[in-house]
Amino acid sequence: MKLVSENRAFGGTHSRYTHQSDTVNCEMTFAVFLPPFATKENPVPVLYWLSGLTCTDENFMQKAGAMKLAAQLGMAIVAPDTSPRGEQVADEDSYDMGKGAGFYLNATQAPWDKHYQMYDYITKELPALIEDTFPVTGERAISGHSMGGHGALVIALRNPQQYVSVSAFSPVSNPTNCPWGQQAFSKYLGDDTSLWQEYDAAVLLSREQHYIPIMVEQGRADQFLTEQLKPEALISNAQKTDTQITLNMHEGYDHSYFFIASFIDEHLQFHAANLGLI
Amino acid sequence: MKLVSENRAFGGTHSRYTHQSDTVNCEMTFAVFLPPFATKENPVPVLYWLSGLTCTDENFMQKAGAMKLAAQLGMAIVAPDTSPRGEQVADEDSYDMGKGAGFYLNATQAPWDKHYQMYDYITKELPALIEDTFPVTGERAISGHSMGGHGALVIALRNPQQYVSVSAFSPVSNPTNCPWGQQAFSKYLGDDTSLWQEYDAAVLLSREQHYIPIMVEQGRADQFLTEQLKPEALISNAQKTDTQITLNMHEGYDHSYFFIASFIDEHLQFHAANLGLI
Repeated sequence: MKLVSENRAFGGTHSRYTHQSDTVNCEMTFAVFLPPFATKENPVPVLYWLSGLTCTDENFMQKAGAMKLAAQLGMAIVAPDTSPRGEQVADEDSYDMGKGAGFYLNATQAPWDKHYQMYDYITKELPALIEDTFPVTGERAISGHSMGGHGALVIALRNPQQYVSVSAFSPVSNPTNCPWGQQAFSKYLGDDTSLWQEYDAAVLLSREQHYIPIMVEQGRADQFLTEQLKPEALISNAQKTDTQITLNMHEGYDHSYFFIASFIDEHLQFHAANLGLI
Repeated sequence: MKLVSENRAFGGTHSRYTHQSDTVNCEMTFAVFLPPFATKENPVPVLYWLSGLTCTDENFMQKAGAMKLAAQLGMAIVAPDTSPRGEQVADEDSYDMGKGAGFYLNATQAPWDKHYQMYDYITKELPALIEDTFPVTGERAISGHSMGGHGALVIALRNPQQYVSVSAFSPVSNPTNCPWGQQAFSKYLGDDTSLWQEYDAAVLLSREQHYIPIMVEQGRADQFLTEQLKPEALISNAQKTDTQITLNMHEGYDHSYFFIASFIDEHLQFHAANLGLI
């Protein structure tokens, strides 16, 4: 693991690291914010943040304005990259496929399967590395935006023992039923749509009752709301299984980081409560 | 004036506009944050933010995390660009001269003098436009970072009747005495160093007592501290004229927006107090 940069921030530390990942078979970058007073003797829980299409580990840390409250709450934040990277990694010219668009799944189709194993990277390799390296507990929460909101929901619903709570901003809620998801799933996962279901939060909610606390934030002026995001599918499917889910709709807010920044503190409070920090 | 984009943020509005500037003789872009409930009947004061080298109107609005408290305080924020722009505008390849590096002065030397009139733009044309267009009072405070900290200090010290308070993060405090300032001043202003003095905050502080409240934030791990920034010149020169100035030094903090974000709320509170908002 190699330190790329380090900035003091809000009494804590924001750092970026690279490491050779066995799971995605290339060098990966992630960012970590450690709050003040996080030590081996006083480890802190971690909020994992999964970013959206075109993002890297940098967007959330620079634009969300999350560190101030995270510092006060005593919560670490880890922001991984959104796909494998490097010259040897398969890609397409479009912004919504290939690099920057890993969709947090394990690809089964060539040429994607060699590197695009982001589901395993996020659920296994990365937290093991984080918990081995930094002064953190094994307690985890997870959140994300857009494609990363999809990733957070799917990962938490499939691994409820690993996360105490999950939240999402403007998630791709029903990817088997929208253009972004259908393109990505058909290329990464092939024609077997039964496999697609495993990466669709709305489908997972319809299958059985889930007990993990779930909170979703959505702007009504989001340009992707109707065609790509479809948060109403989360609600209608959760009702089928008596799963509790909070969906907060906001008049006038769009898909940008200005929306995330406006409500990130509420999500940090939500996770902090579930992590027992407050 | 043309609206470029608009985002709802913290119950208020973040917008970007372009307009044809008579002062700098090209199209200029600025960003404005209006807090909730700002109306013609309930106008709000304005904090002007001047950004540093290479920045545009976007950096502060996206990275500083200032809008949350500004919304609560009822304070508008206006962030102009850092230089004239466009194909017809003189430039150099270096990041610290030409576009993105206007140094908030009125250039006297060709080819710069045709467009690089940022001092007049910031002190006259822009506030007149803002106060003519938006639901704001004539009350102004000013702040900035690095080159923009230099700009804020110089502009406030020379126009104390126009601003109730001034603050700066990591300002270029004594530009006649550092490489960034000497390069810019020699090219924009020519050989007459008496003109340089008018754009040097440390020099202005040494001339007479100033009564405007001044607060400066500086990180001790700032890579530019010793060679370019020299905040100690502000203190030593202010002492000569019994001018009050607060300089807060912070162990471990660097020149980045992570530093600005860590302490922006203290600066908003400082200006809000001077604006009578709290």
